[in-house]
Amino acid sequence: MPEYRAPLDDMRFVLNELAGLPALAATIPDFENATSDVVDAVLAEAGRFAGEVLSPLNRSGDREGVRVVGDDVKVAAHFPEAYRAFAAAGWVSLSGNPEYGGQGLPRVVAVPAGEMWAAANSAFANCPELAGGAILALAAHATPELRARYLPRLLSGEWAATMCLTEPQAGTDLAAVQTRAEAHGDRYRLFGRKIFITWGDHDMTDNIVHLVLARGPDAPPGLKGVSLFLVPKYKLKPDGSLGERNDILPVSVEHKLGLHASPTCVMALGDHGGAEGFLIGRLHDGIACMFTMMNHMRLGVGVQGVGLADRAYQQAVAYARERKQGRSRDGKERVPIIRHADVRRMLLTMRALSEASRAIAYVAGGHLDLADHASEEADRRRHQARADLLTPIVKGWSTEIAQEVAALGVQVHGGMGFIEETGAAQFLRDARITTIYEGTNGIQAMDLVGRKLLRDGGRALDDMLGEMQALDAQLAEGGAQLKAIREALAAGVRAVRESSRFILEGSAKDENLAGAAAFNYLMLLGVVCGGWQMARAAVVAAKGSSPAASAHFLRTKLATARFYADQIMPRAHAHALAISAGSSSIMGFDEEDF
Amino acid sequence: MPEYRAPLDDMRFVLNELAGLPALAATIPDFENATSDVVDAVLAEAGRFAGEVLSPLNRSGDREGVRVVGDDVKVAAHFPEAYRAFAAAGWVSLSGNPEYGGQGLPRVVAVPAGEMWAAANSAFANCPELAGGAILALAAHATPELRARYLPRLLSGEWAATMCLTEPQAGTDLAAVQTRAEAHGDRYRLFGRKIFITWGDHDMTDNIVHLVLARGPDAPPGLKGVSLFLVPKYKLKPDGSLGERNDILPVSVEHKLGLHASPTCVMALGDHGGAEGFLIGRLHDGIACMFTMMNHMRLGVGVQGVGLADRAYQQAVAYARERKQGRSRDGKERVPIIRHADVRRMLLTMRALSEASRAIAYVAGGHLDLADHASEEADRRRHQARADLLTPIVKGWSTEIAQEVAALGVQVHGGMGFIEETGAAQFLRDARITTIYEGTNGIQAMDLVGRKLLRDGGRALDDMLGEMQALDAQLAEGGAQLKAIREALAAGVRAVRESSRFILEGSAKDENLAGAAAFNYLMLLGVVCGGWQMARAAVVAAKGSSPAASAHFLRTKLATARFYADQIMPRAHAHALAISAGSSSIMGFDEEDF
Repeated sequence: MPEYRAPLDDMRFVLNELAGLPALAATIPDFENATSDVVDAVLAEAGRFAGEVLSPLNRSGDREGVRVVGDDVKVAAHFPEAYRAFAAAGWVSLSGNPEYGGQGLPRVVAVPAGEMWAAANSAFANCPELAGGAILALAAHATPELRARYLPRLLSGEWAATMCLTEPQAGTDLAAVQTRAEAHGDRYRLFGRKIFITWGDHDMTDNIVHLVLARGPDAPPGLKGVSLFLVPKYKLKPDGSLGERNDILPVSVEHKLGLHASPTCVMALGDHGGAEGFLIGRLHDGIACMFTMMNHMRLGVGVQGVGLADRAYQQAVAYARERKQGRSRDGKERVPIIRHADVRRMLLTMRALSEASRAIAYVAGGHLDLADHASEEADRRRHQARADLLTPIVKGWSTEIAQEVAALGVQVHGGMGFIEETGAAQFLRDARITTIYEGTNGIQAMDLVGRKLLRDGGRALDDMLGEMQALDAQLAEGGAQLKAIREALAAGVRAVRESSRFILEGSAKDENLAGAAAFNYLMLLGVVCGGWQMARAAVVAAKGSSPAASAHFLRTKLATARFYADQIMPRAHAHALAISAGSSSIMGFDEEDF
Repeated sequence: MPEYRAPLDDMRFVLNELAGLPALAATIPDFENATSDVVDAVLAEAGRFAGEVLSPLNRSGDREGVRVVGDDVKVAAHFPEAYRAFAAAGWVSLSGNPEYGGQGLPRVVAVPAGEMWAAANSAFANCPELAGGAILALAAHATPELRARYLPRLLSGEWAATMCLTEPQAGTDLAAVQTRAEAHGDRYRLFGRKIFITWGDHDMTDNIVHLVLARGPDAPPGLKGVSLFLVPKYKLKPDGSLGERNDILPVSVEHKLGLHASPTCVMALGDHGGAEGFLIGRLHDGIACMFTMMNHMRLGVGVQGVGLADRAYQQAVAYARERKQGRSRDGKERVPIIRHADVRRMLLTMRALSEASRAIAYVAGGHLDLADHASEEADRRRHQARADLLTPIVKGWSTEIAQEVAALGVQVHGGMGFIEETGAAQFLRDARITTIYEGTNGIQAMDLVGRKLLRDGGRALDDMLGEMQALDAQLAEGGAQLKAIREALAAGVRAVRESSRFILEGSAKDENLAGAAAFNYLMLLGVVCGGWQMARAAVVAAKGSSPAASAHFLRTKLATARFYADQIMPRAHAHALAISAGSSSIMGFDEEDF
């Protein structure tokens, strides 16, 4: 199968024309070095690393998997060297704070890099993604001493990180966490069992920084009794060098459908006297601290969906160009299957969904940068609200479309798609977890409806819909060329408005409506936000010139946007109709009758 | 994980109220013994066998897989004994011709039995399904001598069968078959390589009857030069007993995403002087003969989709009842996740799609029985036309929904769904091939549009739409209880009418329209046919009594039909809108630009 090739042209176009990179570099002093030229060079180098180092280990890692040897997890061959090269090249610290050795590039640049790692090798990519989340959580909530001791080594990639949340009885429901932490002087001793710990142990780095949710002393029941602790794999000596092994050990690794090269561990804390840990943030305030990491991971998982979708698309196109079945209409020659209408439908669906989900994710990244760095408080709040609104859409919709795209990738391969050696099936297997981890998409949907729509009465949404509608005038200027795209977007915006009003008004009377409608609402917003970004791209493309793209690229983008309007936007109506049916047929069904 | 439990209540209801079993037994002399009582007893026994014998081997078969030892394929432990028990119980011959030892039950009874085998153990189920197809092909096309020598042993289950179609360059495109057959007296010698041969070799039966497509002497190029041959694994002595091994050998087995216990073989013919074969049907007429088997297999694969969907549903319900996360609204108790709205949405989607696809499949089976056995030629033709129309829908739509339902099954399990031991992932892996083999769903869609819609100018479709519309009066009688179902069906029928007209009229002007619209048209018809069958069921249920079902069953059926109308039927509009966008954005995209 072909190795991964980073879609640098589309990445550059989206960053510059849709996600606001030039404005970031021009207006935010911290980002004055993040010019398009610099970012181009960084991403080209990331693409090279992804294609030449990570991609070739994707199939071998899947075949080899990981294993527990004594108290250690051994990963697949060449993964440790690859990680050291990754760290040495500075990829962990791309958007990290320069105070601790980070390179200080915008998040919006780290997002396409993250897409590349996930596309090339999703199992590998989870390891630096976790480090990135831990860095943010420690920077925001840890004491200066902990920051000084841990952040530089995390940013350099010398050490890795995990998030230890789940326990057998506590998955989505973190209020049920039972792991406990006893105070001992300035530190704690932790006791408990954590499951589903991604990259919970491995031999890629010298140390691992576990962020662990546990109940501290005198913890009240429920979510408000959960605290966050830093538990290192190896304790640090006073001079910061590695000391003895801490009492947090991998007990086993799971046999999973996909991501075979990424160890998913059961971790035992305190079987030998207690795992030494340090409080992060305030006692009993662990969920808020964890959410700093969780929001990063949610965006990251959405981007993983984008990467897997694009990778599946690339491989399917390569196969469809090469595989010959059937004949031309004149019967004279056998033709590659890429000429058959239904194969084109599948490939264009894969392409359009990948590009649309990419655009939403990068746009969300741009808002995060402005939420952190805009000079005016009001701007920061506004961009934070938009990023908050987009995060569940990026996580939820990008991962749903990753399933669909990866499944289409298998389908394009026909019988060969079912054969593991082909590689198409791995993308489907790997993608399957993305709708589940870091909060299932059902949870994302409830977050979207409950926290992002209902809580502010639809203001953040109205703000976004206003921007969508403002695009209409520009689409109108495009005339016949943009007519179908304009109409599809207008219909999509209407569907979102009506569905939102239905939920906002109905929830007052029906306490089940939000939950019953949530998933369709998430999918509706995903489809329409994707159509919005494709329409924005089409407006640029219709003008025929962009400093960020060739004329040929723009023609192709316009054709993809048109396909999206024709073939993807219709889904908005199915979701809106399902929402309008309300909750009765979902909640009225007797529990015993399932 | 729970073992499979056959959904006997729904099967009985569908057979009796929707698929016309009572009328078959009452009006077709051949089926006078197929009374509801007899069929109930047969299916109860099949359910017992599926649940107690086949289901327990599903996970172990998946883990163990198959292997080549010398010239033989060895299957997973206990599969050979299970197959002997299966054969001894008469399950292979259920709807077989009594002339050769079959039990002569209607096909519509074999369909639910097939669903059970697939639900319990899809890898196993493919073996008898292939025998069933070969039996039909031989009965229809083979010489009396071949029938006498082979059919009784196939019907008894002593021997198995395969269909050897695919070659590396000839998948969908059977015109490219290169395996050749040289005449030697009254028989042939075959030379070539076949790939993707399901149950191509194994140790479950004493002999295997391969039906092989090859080019006979003086074959013209293309499809019209392909003939069908019977090639036994072991040649028969004149007395019918087994003689020497024939020159058709398994070379390797594929390492597949799913169906691990079902050997998918590369078969070598003629490496040692030629594989002895016998012509079936006329020379150069192999495709027509093969289609007898292929149509059987297409229905069978669709039913496999139904079975896998139902099995995934059963397991997800069991997990959702048991798994506790979150609390009741009053905060007093932890609740099983089956109480959460989004989990209910997923489970009801799984349930509604499974039941709707089951109903379509059984109804198709009923039409096949009447196509073969109705006393009037005109009736036989009409039922054959309906069965022909429904076959690609059963194959295509049931297998697409099987993917969706199996994926939802994983999702309901949360993180546990990604762990192989849970078993939910296997249903997804096993289901993944069903949209591909026996003609990809793209091919099914083209068959539906090209052969079933365009070729007869929409007459068979109009006939079916007429029946759907005739139901409206009965739905109206149900008043408020059936109002939502009635409106959803009416809208669905309109969508089918408009889309059909658009394709019928547009295809004259646009040679690409049929291909571009085909898949959405297949899905549209699947959704609406499913809604039609659920609406028929709702009419029966609303009356509150049925000889085939309890009052409790009827209430549940009505609630499921209502969910289908509310939450599934909206998809029809998305498909219709995508069809109405035409072919330009699909075919206009430059091939180099993918």
